[in-house]
Amino acid sequence: MRVLGVDPGLTRCGIGVVDGGRGRSVSCVAVGVARTPADAELSARLLGVADVVEEWMDTHEPEVVAVERVFSQHNVRTVMGTAQVSGIVALAAARRGLPVAFHTPSEVKAAISGSGRADKRQVTTMITKILGLAEAPKPADAADALALAVCHLWRAPMAGRLAAAEARAAELARHHRERLRAAQRSAANGSASKGPAAKGSAGKGSAQTGGLPS
Amino acid sequence: MRVLGVDPGLTRCGIGVVDGGRGRSVSCVAVGVARTPADAELSARLLGVADVVEEWMDTHEPEVVAVERVFSQHNVRTVMGTAQVSGIVALAAARRGLPVAFHTPSEVKAAISGSGRADKRQVTTMITKILGLAEAPKPADAADALALAVCHLWRAPMAGRLAAAEARAAELARHHRERLRAAQRSAANGSASKGPAAKGSAGKGSAQTGGLPS
Repeated sequence: MRVLGVDPGLTRCGIGVVDGGRGRSVSCVAVGVARTPADAELSARLLGVADVVEEWMDTHEPEVVAVERVFSQHNVRTVMGTAQVSGIVALAAARRGLPVAFHTPSEVKAAISGSGRADKRQVTTMITKILGLAEAPKPADAADALALAVCHLWRAPMAGRLAAAEARAAELARHHRERLRAAQRSAANGSASKGPAAKGSAGKGSAQTGGLPS
Repeated sequence: MRVLGVDPGLTRCGIGVVDGGRGRSVSCVAVGVARTPADAELSARLLGVADVVEEWMDTHEPEVVAVERVFSQHNVRTVMGTAQVSGIVALAAARRGLPVAFHTPSEVKAAISGSGRADKRQVTTMITKILGLAEAPKPADAADALALAVCHLWRAPMAGRLAAAEARAAELARHHRERLRAAQRSAANGSASKGPAAKGSAGKGSAQTGGLPS
């Protein structure tokens, strides 16, 4: 599976393409950064980043796009620009029918280095090793984009297994509800002559089963 | 001048088109709201809003797009979605070569009601009066989009006058610098035989004029 990772930003937007093979094998297809001048108009900067990201999507034809999830605990001005770029990247993916996955910085760090608190240098070191690159990708935003893509490839199978397990649990819950309802119906039919008390109990029972996870 | 105002949002994105005539005369061309389901994927929601906004741009052919400037003092999750929508709106405008202006909620409230602290109801009441509408635009996001467009029309001439005044000031400063340089040159030529002290003084003078606003 080919993943396009994007570390969104207006000044520097990291972009990396990674191919995932069998097991945990991954290889770097391309890595780069889109830059826009800080003194340009916001809309012109967004257009600049969008053009580069869309060009990468069309050139490398990824099957999925992984974007860093933006939080607002940082500098307010920077976060707004970052959120806007993440929005235009998600939009570009949606226009091409590509699924978009968002991963938090800690998820990426944990996937790559084993610790959600790893620093930038550690992430760069690990992604260079993992992808067997001759030299560390620069700037850090480019390394982060590759880390995001690898994170997605390594987390996706786990997320898939989790979704399968959840679907199995939901199926079991559904069976259980059906068996309960059938039991309540036969109890209600069998005790129809017993009056309102039995009906009230059956009603309460179905309200309870309605509360089970669906 | 025709302005497309956008009150960005994922659940409800207000859109309004207003024509500005002579003086402060304004008229409503169209108003509406783009909605996306809260349980849909983020990228699908962004695509939904983008499609509607772009359709409005193509149908109504505005000359400028006014967007509410997003702040992060509100709910973090909501703000991120709002910022992402404002980004895709600015991008859509940039792709069409349309200028984008951002106005803060207080600027809009002040322009429409005379107070930057007006509440939603007041803004709706005022925009209904100003545009001579038969009934109040609903929801509030639609009224806000119209208010943004009117705010832009009424603030733009002031911004234009300000820019003209600043350009005049810059021109005066440039003349002043040229006169200073000419004076320094003639002083330096006239005192060439006086040695390095005079030259140093001329050099200092030109460094000072370089510090004037350009």
